[in-house]
Amino acid sequence: MKRRRRGYLPMTEIVVALVIACFVGAALGSSSTDDGVWNKAKGFFGPLPEAMHSQKNPITPAKIRLGKMLLYESRISADGTVSCIKCHPISLYGADGLRKAIGNQCQVSPRNAPTIFNAAAQISAHWIGNRADVEDQARQSVIGPPAFGMPTYQAVEKRLKELGYGPLFRQAFPEEREPITIENFAKAIGAFERTLVTPGPFDDFMKGNQGAIDETARLGLKTFMDAGCAACHNSPYLGGQQYQKFGIVAPYWQYTKSAEKDVGRYAVTKNEADRYVFKVPVLRNVAKTAPYFHDGSVDSLAETVWIMGKVQLGKDLTKVQVKEITAFLDALTGAIPLDALTVPLLP
Amino acid sequence: MKRRRRGYLPMTEIVVALVIACFVGAALGSSSTDDGVWNKAKGFFGPLPEAMHSQKNPITPAKIRLGKMLLYESRISADGTVSCIKCHPISLYGADGLRKAIGNQCQVSPRNAPTIFNAAAQISAHWIGNRADVEDQARQSVIGPPAFGMPTYQAVEKRLKELGYGPLFRQAFPEEREPITIENFAKAIGAFERTLVTPGPFDDFMKGNQGAIDETARLGLKTFMDAGCAACHNSPYLGGQQYQKFGIVAPYWQYTKSAEKDVGRYAVTKNEADRYVFKVPVLRNVAKTAPYFHDGSVDSLAETVWIMGKVQLGKDLTKVQVKEITAFLDALTGAIPLDALTVPLLP
Repeated sequence: MKRRRRGYLPMTEIVVALVIACFVGAALGSSSTDDGVWNKAKGFFGPLPEAMHSQKNPITPAKIRLGKMLLYESRISADGTVSCIKCHPISLYGADGLRKAIGNQCQVSPRNAPTIFNAAAQISAHWIGNRADVEDQARQSVIGPPAFGMPTYQAVEKRLKELGYGPLFRQAFPEEREPITIENFAKAIGAFERTLVTPGPFDDFMKGNQGAIDETARLGLKTFMDAGCAACHNSPYLGGQQYQKFGIVAPYWQYTKSAEKDVGRYAVTKNEADRYVFKVPVLRNVAKTAPYFHDGSVDSLAETVWIMGKVQLGKDLTKVQVKEITAFLDALTGAIPLDALTVPLLP
Repeated sequence: MKRRRRGYLPMTEIVVALVIACFVGAALGSSSTDDGVWNKAKGFFGPLPEAMHSQKNPITPAKIRLGKMLLYESRISADGTVSCIKCHPISLYGADGLRKAIGNQCQVSPRNAPTIFNAAAQISAHWIGNRADVEDQARQSVIGPPAFGMPTYQAVEKRLKELGYGPLFRQAFPEEREPITIENFAKAIGAFERTLVTPGPFDDFMKGNQGAIDETARLGLKTFMDAGCAACHNSPYLGGQQYQKFGIVAPYWQYTKSAEKDVGRYAVTKNEADRYVFKVPVLRNVAKTAPYFHDGSVDSLAETVWIMGKVQLGKDLTKVQVKEITAFLDALTGAIPLDALTVPLLP
């Protein structure tokens, strides 16, 4: 082994070391920045799970199978036209493209239909916390206007029996003697929905594949976090974990041009602090689920981003920043699970 | 070689021959009948093709792909809720389970929505001959109430451009400079529909597999032909090849309890001979597409069969005959093509 005298480094070795340092520095240049972004993003978002499990409603193959069928079942609505899929079509990434959902006998829902993808892990379903979870949402939807319009849960159960769902409910809930109940209807749909996660390019990026999203999207991610968006739009779903006042800095309707001033969660709690408070929506697949906001008042994702900067953060995001954030949001468009891409045939 | 005297047969040989004849006769008993039924059926029905080709609209993969997407596209309807799939959901075998289809702004269609499966080979689309073929049906549906409710074809074309369908139309119609036209919209949907054939147990039976349908269904096929049903319900589609007066022997509404007396094809031709004349519907998948008749006035397939005997053939079919025919009709439920079972993601 060659010995080196302490305190002495020959000129050639210094030059070589400097050259190497320069090359490494140049090569790592952008990724050094990205590493910072990446580490920060790890803190905000975390990995998307394979399914959104719930102890109250364990996922089983038989429940998933039945749940997907029930999702397509229109014959349990009062006028025979409404199924879950009507307002949550898979072809449009689980949303309906309307400002506000339209249900039984063309009655207009109070708010925009959120996508069913990546929905089951939120603090509640829908916008104002009046649906505890996706199971509760399925259960509540069947009654009265504006969704399914059925008069009672019993009427739904009776119809399911008539349609021949008995064997399917027995397979999904083998320990029960009379399994066709509204609770099991909700559990089956919920179990299916709990499988609806859509990993996309952003997740590949978060796993360490820097090239999975392009430079603009990477800058967008940085801006998204630096500007403060991730304070609310966090978790693997980029939202769905908290309620927030919509319009902290300025009334939202001044920018969204909303026709009505929706009081939001106040309608549920009657607590003045909840006025104009809504659940922070999940941003997964947001580029595919226009129009935006609780009332679908804005069509353009770029405009939506800019409005959010204005009314939530008091920031006038530049065109470049909006473009970058929008590119980042594009990278949240994910792959629909194969099972959700096939249509079930109904009894 | 042993020589036998002419005109003489020993007693033992006679007995053996008789015994053999009896055994063979017993063994062939039912299948002798089935052979007769089978030969007769070959004359009436013939083999189902792999696709329903049209020289005017050759099927190509790019057209099929685009056509399936357009079938799911609701954003080209006036209120944003109507797509082809709304009234022809795959999950219900291409029909909607309603008495009469419900379209844009909840307007009720004049008649029951026929299935899109095995539909493209009929003499016309729908019930009364006012839609030349599936392409014409797609084209006409988008305009005005009660389906899509769009004001003009131009409005549909404009919307398709806005939604980003340009590249898909260019792939499907590569020789055209401005391919987003209502004609190409119709051709793409038509091309997809022309692939929607659903071979089932009946086709396996017709290929020589006697056990593909059970004894009751085989008897039902015989009764179906003997009673006269196949005079109108023929071709590989068991219908769709002719117009017929509904209620030859007795007015149909006396049996269907129809709320209205639909004049049928008379509405198109103003020819008195066409009063109460409708296209003979295809019976493929009929067990899956209740309710029945042009106005969906009857829910039960068995009752439908009995009514047809009464009003078309002047026959009071027995309960056993109705049961057999219904079992035969069950054997017409076929396999949905795999491509039709997957949901397209839209631009």
